Amino acid sequence: MSQQMEDVQKFGTGEGLKWVGKAVKRIDGPEKVTGEQKYMTDYHYPDMVWGKVLRAKYPFAKIRSIDTSKAEAHPDVVCVLTHENIPGFNGFGIVTPDQPVLCEDIVRCTGDAVALVAAETLEAAEEAIGLIEVDYDPLEAVTDAEAAMVQGAPQLHPDGNIHSHVVIKNGDIDKGFEEADFIFENTFYSPRQMHAFLETEGGWGKVEEDGSLTIQCPGQYGHRDKLQIARALALNPERIHIHSSPNGGGFGGKDEITVQIYLALLALNTNRRPVKLHLSREESVVAGIKRHPFKVTVKTGAKKDGTLVAHKVRAVGDTGAYASLGGAVVALAIEHAAGPYKIPNVDMEGFCVYTNNGIAGAFRGFGVNQVCVGIETHIDMLAKKTGLDPIEIRKKNAYRQGEVSSLGHVVKSSVGTIQTLERAEECDLWVNRDLHKSQASEPWKKRGVALATSFHAIGMGLRTPDYGAASIELMPDGKFKVGLAIEEIGTGNGTVYAQVAAECLKCDIDNIIVLQGDTRETLDSGTISASRSTYTGGRAIATAAPNMIGLLSETAAELLGVSADQIEVSENKLIVANNTERFVSYKEIYEVLRDKNQSTRVEGHFYFPREKRELKNSGGAPHHLYGYMTHVVLVEVDTLTGETDVLKVVAIPDVGKVLNPQGLEGQTEGGAIMGIGYTLYEDVIMKDGYHQTRNLTDYIIPTIRETPVIETVPVESMEASGPFGAKGIAEVVMIPIIPAIMNAIHDAVGVRIKRLPAKPEQIYQAIQESKSQELVSG
Amino acid sequence: MSQQMEDVQKFGTGEGLKWVGKAVKRIDGPEKVTGEQKYMTDYHYPDMVWGKVLRAKYPFAKIRSIDTSKAEAHPDVVCVLTHENIPGFNGFGIVTPDQPVLCEDIVRCTGDAVALVAAETLEAAEEAIGLIEVDYDPLEAVTDAEAAMVQGAPQLHPDGNIHSHVVIKNGDIDKGFEEADFIFENTFYSPRQMHAFLETEGGWGKVEEDGSLTIQCPGQYGHRDKLQIARALALNPERIHIHSSPNGGGFGGKDEITVQIYLALLALNTNRRPVKLHLSREESVVAGIKRHPFKVTVKTGAKKDGTLVAHKVRAVGDTGAYASLGGAVVALAIEHAAGPYKIPNVDMEGFCVYTNNGIAGAFRGFGVNQVCVGIETHIDMLAKKTGLDPIEIRKKNAYRQGEVSSLGHVVKSSVGTIQTLERAEECDLWVNRDLHKSQASEPWKKRGVALATSFHAIGMGLRTPDYGAASIELMPDGKFKVGLAIEEIGTGNGTVYAQVAAECLKCDIDNIIVLQGDTRETLDSGTISASRSTYTGGRAIATAAPNMIGLLSETAAELLGVSADQIEVSENKLIVANNTERFVSYKEIYEVLRDKNQSTRVEGHFYFPREKRELKNSGGAPHHLYGYMTHVVLVEVDTLTGETDVLKVVAIPDVGKVLNPQGLEGQTEGGAIMGIGYTLYEDVIMKDGYHQTRNLTDYIIPTIRETPVIETVPVESMEASGPFGAKGIAEVVMIPIIPAIMNAIHDAVGVRIKRLPAKPEQIYQAIQESKSQELVSG
Repeated sequence: MSQQMEDVQKFGTGEGLKWVGKAVKRIDGPEKVTGEQKYMTDYHYPDMVWGKVLRAKYPFAKIRSIDTSKAEAHPDVVCVLTHENIPGFNGFGIVTPDQPVLCEDIVRCTGDAVALVAAETLEAAEEAIGLIEVDYDPLEAVTDAEAAMVQGAPQLHPDGNIHSHVVIKNGDIDKGFEEADFIFENTFYSPRQMHAFLETEGGWGKVEEDGSLTIQCPGQYGHRDKLQIARALALNPERIHIHSSPNGGGFGGKDEITVQIYLALLALNTNRRPVKLHLSREESVVAGIKRHPFKVTVKTGAKKDGTLVAHKVRAVGDTGAYASLGGAVVALAIEHAAGPYKIPNVDMEGFCVYTNNGIAGAFRGFGVNQVCVGIETHIDMLAKKTGLDPIEIRKKNAYRQGEVSSLGHVVKSSVGTIQTLERAEECDLWVNRDLHKSQASEPWKKRGVALATSFHAIGMGLRTPDYGAASIELMPDGKFKVGLAIEEIGTGNGTVYAQVAAECLKCDIDNIIVLQGDTRETLDSGTISASRSTYTGGRAIATAAPNMIGLLSETAAELLGVSADQIEVSENKLIVANNTERFVSYKEIYEVLRDKNQSTRVEGHFYFPREKRELKNSGGAPHHLYGYMTHVVLVEVDTLTGETDVLKVVAIPDVGKVLNPQGLEGQTEGGAIMGIGYTLYEDVIMKDGYHQTRNLTDYIIPTIRETPVIETVPVESMEASGPFGAKGIAEVVMIPIIPAIMNAIHDAVGVRIKRLPAKPEQIYQAIQESKSQELVSG
Repeated sequence: MSQQMEDVQKFGTGEGLKWVGKAVKRIDGPEKVTGEQKYMTDYHYPDMVWGKVLRAKYPFAKIRSIDTSKAEAHPDVVCVLTHENIPGFNGFGIVTPDQPVLCEDIVRCTGDAVALVAAETLEAAEEAIGLIEVDYDPLEAVTDAEAAMVQGAPQLHPDGNIHSHVVIKNGDIDKGFEEADFIFENTFYSPRQMHAFLETEGGWGKVEEDGSLTIQCPGQYGHRDKLQIARALALNPERIHIHSSPNGGGFGGKDEITVQIYLALLALNTNRRPVKLHLSREESVVAGIKRHPFKVTVKTGAKKDGTLVAHKVRAVGDTGAYASLGGAVVALAIEHAAGPYKIPNVDMEGFCVYTNNGIAGAFRGFGVNQVCVGIETHIDMLAKKTGLDPIEIRKKNAYRQGEVSSLGHVVKSSVGTIQTLERAEECDLWVNRDLHKSQASEPWKKRGVALATSFHAIGMGLRTPDYGAASIELMPDGKFKVGLAIEEIGTGNGTVYAQVAAECLKCDIDNIIVLQGDTRETLDSGTISASRSTYTGGRAIATAAPNMIGLLSETAAELLGVSADQIEVSENKLIVANNTERFVSYKEIYEVLRDKNQSTRVEGHFYFPREKRELKNSGGAPHHLYGYMTHVVLVEVDTLTGETDVLKVVAIPDVGKVLNPQGLEGQTEGGAIMGIGYTLYEDVIMKDGYHQTRNLTDYIIPTIRETPVIETVPVESMEASGPFGAKGIAEVVMIPIIPAIMNAIHDAVGVRIKRLPAKPEQIYQAIQESKSQELVSG
């Protein structure tokens, strides 16, 4: 929208900034590290009852009948609820509400909810769940996405097993391959990763005295959850109040409805007693959403000089029993499948497919993790094949700001790929890579150094509302309460919000109180996902701040008997220009406004800028802006066991202006560790629709032992539309490390990883085979 | 929800009521009859531009390209917009958003919007529309709903032409027909009726100084329209402000989005100049929604004693190019297809089918109009066949409160069928029907008297949120502002709201100011449709009123130094019990509250009661409550021309407590006239997907000449859950009159009407044929 684009303000980006760009300590740090901070599931209320969910016995079965009479007869049971008790639409799902709140006549995965119980104790609730008799007629489960797409496969949903199909084409793919001197073609498989947040899904539901409903639940978008609850329970959304922050970890896993509707439905049936429901880790593994496993077939054509000329991709994502955000995940994957390059001929398609394998949805990286391995492996192969430098090949093909991407659109926002590659080229690990490689800890261990580069969209993309809204309220003590609904889910966005507010209001950061994730008190600011919270929330606050300064200045001018333009903001007070003797404090201004019965609250609203035109069938591509990143890694592979250790990571993000270097490091380090886990260890193993992986005891995530030295070297490609030049960071930080590790394993022991996680047995086996034959195609 | 059900309050229903039940004059009457009242399309703003929509050239065609360059070059054009300019999701639709805001690659009906123009003058906008070049590839149009369902028919939408299929079965239909002594089977066809509201679709869009968006547009649910706009334009719904009341007629035709998204999109592209768009009548005919034409095949089995034993229905509704509320219309039709009877064996199904015939959606009666003709014709046939009294047959088969309906559910709410039939039995037109029939105005004219009874659900039914919310605010002058979002669309609901508020607040009705249809100032109260506004809004106000009385009493007690329970409300002031000397006025209370900086506004929230369990595949049936009605009519048929005049109507509604007899008469008279138009005159004729009917000049609605004497004899079957015992009135008033007229035509000239409207040529032809043969089956 033109006028909104024109609204974009320029921010100071360098000198003179007092709070922005500084390693301001986490405002919620002390409470978090001392354990004082309460999460939503930590609260306790008198007279509470316990809720519990009955999950499906089979991955795919018809329900003949549900008999709750024995459970209802349990002396400590307060209520037993089935689909019959759902007053509204029995379904939820952010895009397609295809998941039943409580199943009626069919179950499609073992995470499916069939009934709810509330009881006096957790033990009684568990007993009652065991007393519910469900008569099932099991069906043959569909557990392979490719098989699910074949005509004649059992159908999970009325419109068939293909939930969505995304296609992005540009140029002439056949001509591209004709021009190629080398063609690489490989198929890559990726795992079902678990978010493994510390706080599992859970929370509280309560009917208030006035009949309204309060839900406390760690979620990622309370304002949207409210609408999903209202639809299912036929309630007025205005009467639902959601507290969703702080949150013991989200990573996308709490973007969809988790237990909010259960909490609400239970609360409406417990005679106004508050009800708690908190999934055990085992239940979270089975019922919680996961990252989509992908099968990605990639064919890349390149010229002798390293120019990429053609790139063909076919990706199939297994979304499990319900869509959740699967369609968007596959769309984002395809948008990113050619990397941050300008390949003139691309033909990329993705399918999001239903199976009976649990449910997949949003997860940090949102499909890009699964596809970045194709292009980055092929460039590494091309380098080995041609002897060209892998950084040079990437630089040669990378699009710059103002150039046309592989998608065919002019990238108008900031692009830092080249700078991140330059930093990689200069870093010790790369410059002295031969030295690093020679220092293996044992003779049978081999070291490798490699890199990869990638990118990740920021914001929701076209088609989806994307806006930030913040309020700033002057408080009785003269401090400012900055409110916006975007939740704190561990990213530290609240600290960044405080910095932006303090900078814009020219006050001490201690004067800022940040309130997040409360649908009654804070304005809808969209979801905490899509790497959007710093950019969008920051812009919203920066838009609200001048309104507050205006309010303060006008009031001060009146008090001091001068005109408003003579008032200056100076270190937590307002002075008459060039006369520090004449000033008023914010506390005084509050009192004046209160006595005049005038509001002390202002708002700021910001709309995400957008490309004019969506690419056809692209599911919302292209995005307006992207973060870029290069990872250089050093690995050591034990040739006797196949075990891989990542020893060193140089993380080189381009996320625009770094608003808080300490926060940035927190993200780059967390992202690198999550990327290592994804590449080497993590997989929720399923068999015939049942989870073999049941708990964190058999789902290995990196610990401090697996955590390498991680060096963060930020590149700041200032984004004109961002708050002080910032973009976003949360997702790109875990992406290029995946192919970088894969390439480094090849550098160490000469085997190509095509299936993640790269478990020791796979690597060991490949090493054995590579002794007699060349494994690499192309 | 249990506690909400428990919240149901008992109201006084009879004596002692001061405002409720009285013929209080329309509060908006004087402004309306003098033409002083401004509707949304009546406003004018400086610096305005005119918007105009380019509609599709063909009923079904691919779009090869759209060239807007010539239009853009027009000197007076401000902007030209196509699908490329839609920032969000390019679709709308209350249930299924299958209608493009602006078509991209296909058009499915000639009402489809392809482009928008804003220009300095309406003339320039029209010129520019003519300069847009769209290259179409026409496709064979699908114009018959039955043909559209056949395999191999061209498909309008990816999931096929059958938008929805609803089935309600109860008992054993085969056994039922075996038991029957008589079986009647006929197929009925009904027309594409036009709402023909006075104010066509139109309104204003403006971007405010703070960047928020204001839309003024006569709609039927501003709070929902806000969400549809937000989705299409990727905006924050909190930043969209909709004024939707008063409204120059709705009848369901403005329940769906009409031009709201166009207004919003234009406003975002006119450099903050306000933009007006107002459909001409011709454009409204082509692009506005219509009533679904139905083909309904009905088979009814009855015993010799008049007991109905089996009823089979197959209905096919033509929803045109997009679903809008078509699925719900067909579902409601099927829910009502067996009439207000207890037929033990029913098998009823309905299909909502896409064709290229414009768009059909909500319309007063919502599908019941189309199906009531089947059962009521068959009962009339049964009476003729057996010689039984048609009223006796109906009484015998009618379910009473607490009995099981044909759907198989116990009807717990009030049921007035028997009482309405008793009033019919006693009325002069029925008692002296032979006399009335003998008084034909010419020898070649024949008179007939007949009746029919029917019912209509009130409220949204299961699955759909249904709630009322009202605010009451004490104003500086001591008056009360009653606010609720439900729009005034001509029904007079505002007057009823004022009555309920005055009654509950024990004040003079002149002290009540009613505010409706403003998303910023009034609480979401659901849509103005489904005969729900008196019941739901009334209950919401009655829930808010005690909160206001509490606030007033507590404040008065403090002022007068007594306890709150000693305070009594007495004629617009608060007195100390038994001491009229000690009182405070509302104005004084306002001042006290203002000085204490305390809110003077309270809220009331009400949730619609619901049946516990939805019938399977029924689309939300059964509803919690229904209005019932019997119509007795006298017609005169000119045997030389086939023309029919309706001379007298006795309208006997059961709508629970009549809150305003004058308002009730307004509804019964308007409904009867609309029913006469539907039965005898109205049809939007289409050919090959093009509208043959283009304006009101060739679409005949009843005028004062066609308006008979209408006598209203209300029956008050008090509904315990309703405000003061009220239910709803708006739709049932036009329903039984349809088969009543059809039956009266048969009574006059012995021909059965199977196709509506019953035009003179049809009747004339039938009379000619009946001279030699019996036309009636069964």
